[in-house]
Amino acid sequence: MNVTLRGRTRPYRTVTYDARSNTVQLIDQRLLPHEFTVVSTSNCFETGQAIRDMLVRGAGAIGATAAYGLAQGAKAFPGEDLRTFGRYIKEVFELLKSARPTAVDPVNAMLEVLRQMKGGETVAEKQALAVAAAEEFAHEDVEHCRGIGRQGSRLIRNGARVLTHCNAGWLAFVDIGSATGPIYAAQAEGKKVHVFCDETRPRCQGATLTAWELAQQGISHDVIADNAAGHLFQRRQIDLVIVGSDRTLGRTGEVANKIGTYTKAVLARRHRVPFYVAIPLSSIDWDLRSGRNIPIEEREQSEVLGAWGANGKSKREYVRIANPLSTARNPGFDVTPPDLITGIITPVGIFRPKDLWKNRAKLRNKRW
Amino acid sequence: MNVTLRGRTRPYRTVTYDARSNTVQLIDQRLLPHEFTVVSTSNCFETGQAIRDMLVRGAGAIGATAAYGLAQGAKAFPGEDLRTFGRYIKEVFELLKSARPTAVDPVNAMLEVLRQMKGGETVAEKQALAVAAAEEFAHEDVEHCRGIGRQGSRLIRNGARVLTHCNAGWLAFVDIGSATGPIYAAQAEGKKVHVFCDETRPRCQGATLTAWELAQQGISHDVIADNAAGHLFQRRQIDLVIVGSDRTLGRTGEVANKIGTYTKAVLARRHRVPFYVAIPLSSIDWDLRSGRNIPIEEREQSEVLGAWGANGKSKREYVRIANPLSTARNPGFDVTPPDLITGIITPVGIFRPKDLWKNRAKLRNKRW
Repeated sequence: MNVTLRGRTRPYRTVTYDARSNTVQLIDQRLLPHEFTVVSTSNCFETGQAIRDMLVRGAGAIGATAAYGLAQGAKAFPGEDLRTFGRYIKEVFELLKSARPTAVDPVNAMLEVLRQMKGGETVAEKQALAVAAAEEFAHEDVEHCRGIGRQGSRLIRNGARVLTHCNAGWLAFVDIGSATGPIYAAQAEGKKVHVFCDETRPRCQGATLTAWELAQQGISHDVIADNAAGHLFQRRQIDLVIVGSDRTLGRTGEVANKIGTYTKAVLARRHRVPFYVAIPLSSIDWDLRSGRNIPIEEREQSEVLGAWGANGKSKREYVRIANPLSTARNPGFDVTPPDLITGIITPVGIFRPKDLWKNRAKLRNKRW
Repeated sequence: MNVTLRGRTRPYRTVTYDARSNTVQLIDQRLLPHEFTVVSTSNCFETGQAIRDMLVRGAGAIGATAAYGLAQGAKAFPGEDLRTFGRYIKEVFELLKSARPTAVDPVNAMLEVLRQMKGGETVAEKQALAVAAAEEFAHEDVEHCRGIGRQGSRLIRNGARVLTHCNAGWLAFVDIGSATGPIYAAQAEGKKVHVFCDETRPRCQGATLTAWELAQQGISHDVIADNAAGHLFQRRQIDLVIVGSDRTLGRTGEVANKIGTYTKAVLARRHRVPFYVAIPLSSIDWDLRSGRNIPIEEREQSEVLGAWGANGKSKREYVRIANPLSTARNPGFDVTPPDLITGIITPVGIFRPKDLWKNRAKLRNKRW
């Protein structure tokens, strides 16, 4: 999507790969929205470190980064011995996997690269296939988001006021984004949209990343405290909610997403406002049988007890907000039950959450 | 309530008056929880400035501060001419009123002081009556909170986990507090209580003031992001909600309180968790006929776009969190309808919100 720097607007992707220099380019998301910097990693170790340092985050974005990292590693291999190459690739795989041990996307992305590399008979062929597979993975991530946009934009009427939570925008993917897909598509169709961005404490990805994305794209928006949506629902100032999802259970229609998502679904239901979840097909979990089995990560207390922001001296300053003697609870995710969800927006259609399972043939099709 | 400084514990009130030196003592709430300082104002102008600067906040606390400020002004008057004294008192009244123009408590408190001053025939008599009336106002504020505690503590079983929002603690009153009244009373009765403090963005009075209060009082608690309560409700980790109120409508049972209160009431209802509002009798509005008529103040955007906290260099540092090009909406309050409220805890009993009006004789009685 577009980024304007010093008056000049040009399109960027969250992650790209340059074959000639064998480097991966990543937007440094830790510095946003206060500074826009693209970091170039010159080998797979640096790429792994970028994932580890959360320079890049978001399911699709870290999937593509890991895929590119594996291709980057493959391409850097000197020599032609297939057995040495095989051992080396395994090490690169483990290195990139360990960069974000609980995430499933990097692993799935790299397994797909490995699968396609099997088609090559020489090191050179495998290297070329690795790069092609990583590029294909990134391309597919973009196409999924484009598909979500196409499907979802018909839900957005001209003048609609949309609430979103956290960042399921293009920074969380390679481009376009899931929850933002329908919004960008509606804009492209000439519709006026206003977005309310939940700031999304404790990490404030709504106030920082989503608000930055929307501003770059010229979409009218307001940041709100997570407390404020209830009042806006009461005053009929929200027409539609669209959020993303970290994991959607194909068997039950339950949706795990950033903490606070469930609360917005409860409010939307009370006010009869449609509540949609936008997801690429890769985030559907076809195995788990209950949302109760989704592990809810309890994150660091410091996130709740303070905040990161910019002041005159620093672009990334931590201030302690809460009482110094107090502790915090910090669950990172919650699970929204299917009865609160109007529809799941996917690249292949919009489904009621309970209907995912019976449409699984269509939804599991790798080549949609 | 208790404050421990350098290992020594002693009781404090949010605001006190020293007759000998004619000074008002105020806990500087802008510096909490990072620094505990008591400021002494030596004349009514300084007291007015302290209200204006939000050194003191909270309905009961600013009511008592204004009452003391008026008495302080009266006592400082030199001479015996009643007409000059009368004109002078009027000016002091206007000065203190203008310090927080939208608040109703300072005005009500000062009107009561003026009413009682009428009983004096000389300047000296009126001065003495002003001081006595201000002391009585503060005393009554404490007694109301004590009464709320007595009434409410029976709702708290041993081991209960209570959610509260914002600060309706002793810092918002002269002592004890409204929402915290039942918690402190339950503790005094030997019950174990755990409190979840919503951090209460954007101003974070839960993370700063309520958490500080509870820590000083030795009450087990955790600060949570405003987003987290929904998940805790789902996991059955909250037994009871108690919040305060800025204004409760006696005719309808609607409750205006800090933004986000309504959301917690909606969640509590979904999970069949009791939701109580604790109020002194002074915060009931017997005139307004609909919550729609309560003006909802839209506060400064900077509150939502950033946060105040402490870092190594400063006890009060502002950091900008949100995207610099983004705007914010910042409604300060919301209105919770009576159907979501289990009961209103008052010093004279616990009432269903719809029953306030038929109990108005009891609730409007100045000498309960």
